[in-house]
Amino acid sequence: MTAFPVPTMPAPPVGVVGLGQLGGSLAAALVAAGREVSGWDVDPAAREAAAARGVRVTGQMDGVVVLAVPLPAMARALEGLDVAPDATVTDLGSVKTPVLADVGTAVGHRYVGGHPMCGTERSGHEATDPGLFAGARWALCLEPGTELPRWLRVAEVALSAGAEVVPTTAAEHDDAVAAVSHVPHLLAAALAAAAGEAGPLALALAAGSFRDGTRVIGSDPGLVTAMVQGNAGPTAAALARVLDQLSRPWPELVAAGHAVRAAAPAGRRPVRVPLERAALLSLGRAGGAVTRRLAAFVEGYVPDVG
Amino acid sequence: MTAFPVPTMPAPPVGVVGLGQLGGSLAAALVAAGREVSGWDVDPAAREAAAARGVRVTGQMDGVVVLAVPLPAMARALEGLDVAPDATVTDLGSVKTPVLADVGTAVGHRYVGGHPMCGTERSGHEATDPGLFAGARWALCLEPGTELPRWLRVAEVALSAGAEVVPTTAAEHDDAVAAVSHVPHLLAAALAAAAGEAGPLALALAAGSFRDGTRVIGSDPGLVTAMVQGNAGPTAAALARVLDQLSRPWPELVAAGHAVRAAAPAGRRPVRVPLERAALLSLGRAGGAVTRRLAAFVEGYVPDVG
Repeated sequence: MTAFPVPTMPAPPVGVVGLGQLGGSLAAALVAAGREVSGWDVDPAAREAAAARGVRVTGQMDGVVVLAVPLPAMARALEGLDVAPDATVTDLGSVKTPVLADVGTAVGHRYVGGHPMCGTERSGHEATDPGLFAGARWALCLEPGTELPRWLRVAEVALSAGAEVVPTTAAEHDDAVAAVSHVPHLLAAALAAAAGEAGPLALALAAGSFRDGTRVIGSDPGLVTAMVQGNAGPTAAALARVLDQLSRPWPELVAAGHAVRAAAPAGRRPVRVPLERAALLSLGRAGGAVTRRLAAFVEGYVPDVG
Repeated sequence: MTAFPVPTMPAPPVGVVGLGQLGGSLAAALVAAGREVSGWDVDPAAREAAAARGVRVTGQMDGVVVLAVPLPAMARALEGLDVAPDATVTDLGSVKTPVLADVGTAVGHRYVGGHPMCGTERSGHEATDPGLFAGARWALCLEPGTELPRWLRVAEVALSAGAEVVPTTAAEHDDAVAAVSHVPHLLAAALAAAAGEAGPLALALAAGSFRDGTRVIGSDPGLVTAMVQGNAGPTAAALARVLDQLSRPWPELVAAGHAVRAAAPAGRRPVRVPLERAALLSLGRAGGAVTRRLAAFVEGYVPDVG
């Protein structure tokens, strides 16, 4: 067994810009994994909390620089920081095409877009949890111009935090998360708003199905709005597909939804995939993920439906 | 303080027909509360499980008889049982107007419709939990012809199981649960079905918002279909109101949904309500519930928004 990370590529230092729930948790997870982590936040309380967890608080960053700020702040997140000219820049934003346009234009070939599929309806540095990424899938974008060594460097950061890496493109990512994350936020909002109109008796009779169906709209409404508006095209298309489903006869609709939800958790078939864009993207499209990096391969799995 | 139940009305025996998740849990909760409970189920395994929890397994029933069978079986649930001619009959069905029509016609003035707002996506006697009703709201119907002493007898059963009693009518109940329970099941089904169509990458990136938003469609699809079709009119109307919400500009929609979901848990203002239909229904419409029965009053609360 080859030790991780492989000796041929020493783990680079990591800088985290934005120490709220996601950035603070990532910094804490990497410190716990023995990585050298620097971090910065405009909020002194967030800086202090990170420092208490072993993060070196500084605006000087090198290696892999992670932008963990809200989408509206992404384009200007590096302003005033002292980032090494060859540093690889990644982000944790929930939408990838607009960040690719903004940050990708600003830092060019050094940018690799990412999105860990975790977080809760809480936010801010008080919600920091070093275990947040354990077992989570982390989408990592391989555009035609992405440099594979930089992609691997960011992948190693994600793996160090306990996540599994899903190779994808910004466009495919945005379509997928519209269906499984952004539309759920809109449905939750509509369900809550309509129940509010129905009145106190309805809210008094609300139980598990209402609580679960509305949980995500407990999140900060500014962040939710930025997320759905930042992915407006794919979200509108995915919402239209949900509305199509809602026009089906109810027995058909219920059966179809139950079949997806109740599908037995797929097994995992281990695979080795060469370090090559097309092969990695195929792994992601098949529902697979990278779990380990070897010298010339990554190890991972695809769902085993057999 | 007056002890409960009040000495003027000794707790009647309870018979539970159907010993699956709801009926089995209710029987177990009442046994734990020291009540005399008989029970019956067509499934010998469910009868055996109930007997092991101290339920007397018999088709002879008296006092308050609780129909805890699926909606399609409700009309014929009493067939073959030996029920005392003056027994009060109630049910736990998730829709009240059709049961009022079926069972109400069959047993007439002895019927009081009920619906405890609890249960999980599991079903069957293996899912029995004597704590299932603790703190749950239990809608109990006061139609114009409902006899108040029978309503109180059923209310005392619900209170003994640990629930709070929400006085309502079948029609108002069905409108309310369409908004907070039946539509959430349809939204969950549509969300899951659309994500299934989006493919393996989307399902691989599905995280908390998708899991929460689809949980209830893990329930038995036959029961879900019977529930929404048994409440078709109110559910279609409530679904139309959700679709209206979905046509609003997203920032407005997100803000409106967040406001309902994030509303601070209302305080509770204790109230005493005379044992009178109009006063009890007003309590329910205000979002309140009955928590205790005294001689000539019930005690309860209304939400305190002050």
